[in-house]
Amino acid sequence: MSDAPLFNTITLIGVGLIGSSLARVIREKGLARRVIAGVRPGAAAETLKRIAITDAVIENPAEAVKDADLVILCTPVGSYGKIAAAIAPNLKPGAILSDVGSVKDLVLRDVGPHVPPGVHFIPAHPVAGTEQSGPEAGFAALFDNRWCILTPTPDTDPKALAKLHAFWEACGSKVEIMEAKHHDLVLAITSHVPHLIAYNIVGTASDLETVTNSEVIKYSAGGFRDFTRIAASDPTMWRDVFLANKDAVLEMLGRFTEDLIALQRNIRWGDGDALFDLFTRTRAIRHQIIDAGQETNRPDFGRGPGEGK
Amino acid sequence: MSDAPLFNTITLIGVGLIGSSLARVIREKGLARRVIAGVRPGAAAETLKRIAITDAVIENPAEAVKDADLVILCTPVGSYGKIAAAIAPNLKPGAILSDVGSVKDLVLRDVGPHVPPGVHFIPAHPVAGTEQSGPEAGFAALFDNRWCILTPTPDTDPKALAKLHAFWEACGSKVEIMEAKHHDLVLAITSHVPHLIAYNIVGTASDLETVTNSEVIKYSAGGFRDFTRIAASDPTMWRDVFLANKDAVLEMLGRFTEDLIALQRNIRWGDGDALFDLFTRTRAIRHQIIDAGQETNRPDFGRGPGEGK
Repeated sequence: MSDAPLFNTITLIGVGLIGSSLARVIREKGLARRVIAGVRPGAAAETLKRIAITDAVIENPAEAVKDADLVILCTPVGSYGKIAAAIAPNLKPGAILSDVGSVKDLVLRDVGPHVPPGVHFIPAHPVAGTEQSGPEAGFAALFDNRWCILTPTPDTDPKALAKLHAFWEACGSKVEIMEAKHHDLVLAITSHVPHLIAYNIVGTASDLETVTNSEVIKYSAGGFRDFTRIAASDPTMWRDVFLANKDAVLEMLGRFTEDLIALQRNIRWGDGDALFDLFTRTRAIRHQIIDAGQETNRPDFGRGPGEGK
Repeated sequence: MSDAPLFNTITLIGVGLIGSSLARVIREKGLARRVIAGVRPGAAAETLKRIAITDAVIENPAEAVKDADLVILCTPVGSYGKIAAAIAPNLKPGAILSDVGSVKDLVLRDVGPHVPPGVHFIPAHPVAGTEQSGPEAGFAALFDNRWCILTPTPDTDPKALAKLHAFWEACGSKVEIMEAKHHDLVLAITSHVPHLIAYNIVGTASDLETVTNSEVIKYSAGGFRDFTRIAASDPTMWRDVFLANKDAVLEMLGRFTEDLIALQRNIRWGDGDALFDLFTRTRAIRHQIIDAGQETNRPDFGRGPGEGK
């Protein structure tokens, strides 16, 4: 990399957990001369002005993209089509348009038709996050050592792709190129279905008549509390993900349920060997995730003993 | 509490994660004059002799209980009946016999009939643990600020109960008294079904033909990796839990699956409002668990950014 920043102006549309982490890392690493937040008027806009992590907060996305060399959509995926239509006339020739959404095939279909000739549209998905939301939840190191998946099409300009690749590497990410439909299948099993079953068990537990909510809360250290972390993720973002990745989620969910029914049958019929075999096999995968640098090796995620008291 | 230790001799039968944590906290807090490990000959026994966290390692459980005022079964629950039969003739009159198992009704039925008159049998369950196993995985602070559930019967001697209550409080726990069958229902939803669905999704993910194991591992930070923690728990212990708490697990699992099918239908028919409502409701429960002191309030369990690289 030369001493000049990768971009003159980067505009982030929507500045929640991911957008505000981008704003911070762009500043920290000097990846652009200017970072602009393009947001709707409201509480988040006021917070952004107060915490001042961007050079400007423009409460009109179409205005905010005018000078940008890189525009990144950081709103829930369900909003992309409308935003793309609004900003398209103001996108600069040669600019790169990208996003951070957890679904990629629908993004190509929703956004693609709005993109003017001469603008390079390359969807992206940094596989990183926490259960917290909003501009104050972000931090510059969020993408450090995490994978970012780019899903170009055969028509994508190689120079623009290389520039976006370099941008994410400069943000700390490891970068992978993938076909959009395959991305959606991979994320359905590594992210979307896990979120769905976490939301689901928390719902099931809170609806019981025989066990009180207070008991669920008190004894949650038995395992349940782990699920509440991802079940505390942003509701709008996740609603949009499930609606936008319906086919892949239903496919993976079907397999999950089929396997669960088989396991239920093993329990009903007392097949201890089948249970033991599965429980032994699953143990190995965690060790591989730790070895791959994608998980802490500290027991209990490194939560301190008695933490929270 | 007076200056004298609560017990003269405590014998732990089986010394894995929980037993070795007990051995350590008993020593650290001076809760007994002597702690004895009663284990089968083998690798764990050799480890125990090497790390010397007990005053003696006796490779014969029946011998190990002879002088004990408190005997705690710390082996997988499926082994209790056989162990109880073996140690019963050697239990001292007036001794307390307890355990740490995650299922309580079957324990009453498996162990109860072996308990000689004059011995106080009081099942117990400390709701604490990590995904690691074995005598070297334990630590004295494991029970700190966690709940321990005692499940006495109407016949239980109140003095013995008070003594076991005091013991667990001295170990750092908060203590609750519960009926055994109710305990099993509460733990089915707060611990057993969460473990089952974690084991299950890790199994589903590793069996896919369309997504490679290497992809599952690389992109696990999207949520999947959280589930691998509890799916790395001890296979023998968990096999026994599901076999021993069959009815309550099948009941809770039936509700979970019913709710999941309804959620699947919402996704198929694009009912975003139903998804949004559930995802909003579940968010509140995590905050209650944090407020109750049973979970860290640090984002992402406090895992460091990019941790593991």
